Amino acid sequence: MIFSVQVEVRLRPGIADPQGSTIERAIPTLGVAGVTGVRVGKFIRFDIDAADEASARASVEDLCRRFLTNPVIEDSFIELSAGAAS
Amino acid sequence: MIFSVQVEVRLRPGIADPQGSTIERAIPTLGVAGVTGVRVGKFIRFDIDAADEASARASVEDLCRRFLTNPVIEDSFIELSAGAAS
Repeated sequence: MIFSVQVEVRLRPGIADPQGSTIERAIPTLGVAGVTGVRVGKFIRFDIDAADEASARASVEDLCRRFLTNPVIEDSFIELSAGAAS
Repeated sequence: MIFSVQVEVRLRPGIADPQGSTIERAIPTLGVAGVTGVRVGKFIRFDIDAADEASARASVEDLCRRFLTNPVIEDSFIELSAGAAS
């Protein structure tokens, strides 16, 4: 059974985000005011073939912990739904 | 009025995603099978102070087009809700 997965990887609260700070400093020079708290993250989308939702989720959590994130500075958020995305 | 914004930036369909391909090739070596179609993107979260939702959305769309994405190869998806995220 195919599940469509989206993993969102965010820097943990309190971890400095230099990419976000750079964007925040640049935005007023483009004529847009009032933007604060810019944080940049990444997401990874894929399809996974697994027997059921529980085993798909277990595989994705294992991948997140071992490979897709640095758990010291990043949190991951998994969204999983039945059916291929593409 | 403060709005919480999330902009998701994805490579357009058909544009090669070498980062996603590299992840897809690495995953089987970690003992997880059945993962296909890996695509990597980024998101940018921030708060924006605007008079109303329409003007907040117009500012964010302007930022996306001029600064946050490369519209030749990337699509952006904007989610906007009332209230600060943090």
